Amino acid sequence: MIIKTIVKGDNSSSDEEAARLAELARLREEIDSVDARLLEAYHERQRLVTAIAATKGDTKRPVRDPVREVEKLAAHPKEAPLLATLMRLSRASQYRLRYEAGARFPIGEEIAMAADALPPVHVVTTQGDLSSYGAAAARELFPEAQVMPLRTFVSACRQVVDDNAKVAVLPLENSSSGIVHEVYDLLTRHRLYIVGQVAMEIQHRLLALPGTRLGDIRRVISHPQALAQCSTIIQGMGWQIEESQNTAFAARRVAELGDKQVAALASADAGRDFGLVVLSDQVANVADNQTLFVAIARRPVIVPEASRVSLLLSLPHQSGALAELLATFADLNLNLSRIQSLPVPKRPWQYAFYIDIDVAARDEAMLEALYQLSLELPSLRFLGWYPVRTVLDWQQRN
Amino acid sequence: MIIKTIVKGDNSSSDEEAARLAELARLREEIDSVDARLLEAYHERQRLVTAIAATKGDTKRPVRDPVREVEKLAAHPKEAPLLATLMRLSRASQYRLRYEAGARFPIGEEIAMAADALPPVHVVTTQGDLSSYGAAAARELFPEAQVMPLRTFVSACRQVVDDNAKVAVLPLENSSSGIVHEVYDLLTRHRLYIVGQVAMEIQHRLLALPGTRLGDIRRVISHPQALAQCSTIIQGMGWQIEESQNTAFAARRVAELGDKQVAALASADAGRDFGLVVLSDQVANVADNQTLFVAIARRPVIVPEASRVSLLLSLPHQSGALAELLATFADLNLNLSRIQSLPVPKRPWQYAFYIDIDVAARDEAMLEALYQLSLELPSLRFLGWYPVRTVLDWQQRN
Repeated sequence: MIIKTIVKGDNSSSDEEAARLAELARLREEIDSVDARLLEAYHERQRLVTAIAATKGDTKRPVRDPVREVEKLAAHPKEAPLLATLMRLSRASQYRLRYEAGARFPIGEEIAMAADALPPVHVVTTQGDLSSYGAAAARELFPEAQVMPLRTFVSACRQVVDDNAKVAVLPLENSSSGIVHEVYDLLTRHRLYIVGQVAMEIQHRLLALPGTRLGDIRRVISHPQALAQCSTIIQGMGWQIEESQNTAFAARRVAELGDKQVAALASADAGRDFGLVVLSDQVANVADNQTLFVAIARRPVIVPEASRVSLLLSLPHQSGALAELLATFADLNLNLSRIQSLPVPKRPWQYAFYIDIDVAARDEAMLEALYQLSLELPSLRFLGWYPVRTVLDWQQRN
Repeated sequence: MIIKTIVKGDNSSSDEEAARLAELARLREEIDSVDARLLEAYHERQRLVTAIAATKGDTKRPVRDPVREVEKLAAHPKEAPLLATLMRLSRASQYRLRYEAGARFPIGEEIAMAADALPPVHVVTTQGDLSSYGAAAARELFPEAQVMPLRTFVSACRQVVDDNAKVAVLPLENSSSGIVHEVYDLLTRHRLYIVGQVAMEIQHRLLALPGTRLGDIRRVISHPQALAQCSTIIQGMGWQIEESQNTAFAARRVAELGDKQVAALASADAGRDFGLVVLSDQVANVADNQTLFVAIARRPVIVPEASRVSLLLSLPHQSGALAELLATFADLNLNLSRIQSLPVPKRPWQYAFYIDIDVAARDEAMLEALYQLSLELPSLRFLGWYPVRTVLDWQQRN
């Protein structure tokens, strides 16, 4: 008992403590009974909302009445957070009624018309060369296809836009260096869709000419993201750095230079292709480093095992708009797995958002959310509904 | 009248329409009276919450009781969104009582002890060279200081960590290419603070040797972000690209190569420094391209004109945790100006968040939010509370 008192850090006796706990229990019971009244009033409110929806009748009239909302919030500033929740739930139930009554909307049509299976994929483009991580991801996702590596992200996408290849496989995000913005930009600019995703464990090797010793190295060549992922050892050894467009290109350049003072950070595959030896496979700042690769196509494909939706959207200029958007998803038990705000190029410092939601293929709650957001947001683009895989051991298998 | 009916797209007569509007008005009055009952119950609930806070007494007892919350939500699944709001507001008012009673917390101490003015800054480090955009931002923020350009972000920060320079000025985000992840990483790793920010309009020039004509160019050299920002013209002209660590380094390389087939994308200043001429100043994909630069120091400084708070935080593993975090800010009328989820390096695909909030220096609602979040989040780091400037015309002035 003494120990318990000391641990709690106060001087109350056990009697006082018991009285306090009893008081706490009594107050909580009172709260429960207030909550019962609150919920009863809430149910009545929702019944009235349904009646309003029926009265509005014609679904061309907007569910949201911003003037009435602003007036109500202004009339009760201290209760605004509660009223905002009530109005949000009221709108959601009106949207649900319309959605269940068969309301049509462009993204709904896009999803309804999406194929259930990928067409046969004979050629997959990627950036880099045949020993790059992108090519490995392409083979992982499309083992039957021919992998066509190209010099840039733009040229890899161009082949898909021109229908010379069904799919491009490009990196979207690295678990330690962040997003690959250019790929998002290409998705948007060419109205392409994500049809698959694979998270590949990336293990950079320090590669050099045969006969090189670690102490010989003065300069290391690789992609800027790989250099950033291995910055601790680079700083520690005092190596100079040289950037290249792709890790496999870096390995080729080391082979071409024929200089034992130069090493590359690239995959074991790339080392093998260009006759380099592995000086170390423990060069990354953190041991488990993954890169997300996405398969990009001209048309959406929603296979039955699809598990993630990607959206690009912008918000109305209104305080709390992002909080309300996320609450709308949370109310429907939809879980965000990622969010990125990104500046809108032509309007600096106004933000758009990339959002990923983990949800089964053609889930009704997700479709309902898309219906509501199509009507409420200034802009909303559906980027895909696709399956997600993680491959941890590909370098061991090759 | 006929026109009105056609515009509305239905066949209702004006009488039917009037009846419908009257019914709508009546239902809305009923909702208002239900809302009055709801608010009355809510006020009673908040009074009970205050009594509970007093009964809990000892502020070492946590405000949040996750077991009770989960039980209540599970008992009323259909009303969970409303109950979650009620419980969130209940916790917020308990935190407010404790905060107003003088509760202390580490971030509160950090802010209380932060200086109100920057110490004299004699040396500012940056990345690049004296004609880089970073150096221009450094001069803009610290016109009296000597600018010391260094080769990498890491070395610019190292001088601050070692107290050889009071401040480093580095890019944090570009309005068309996204965030500079490495700088965030350095802020975190060395526990540095943001003490100022300036958004600089970036206008890339296409620079080449005197006497070069646009049609001579075969290859263009620049930083990968600048190349990405000018990708349209690069693709259109079919130029090869070569990456460099900094736009000013690219200009120097063009001067050194002495080859009229090679151009650089860099600032007018860099062109002047290395004897290059401007072939075009209309090369960027979008006309107004801004880069956010931040001033980074070893200690927080909160000047009276500070207007933005930056935070790095992680969320509990719980569905809707992000929605609840943003609602907490919205409830206090705190406006997010930016949010980035970023993967946690050692735990791939678990996310941390960078959040910016626009709020006046030492605002009480912000401090209250920081107190609550310090206690509720698995991790929260205060990155700075600093003034924000935009400079649109610096290249014209130089």
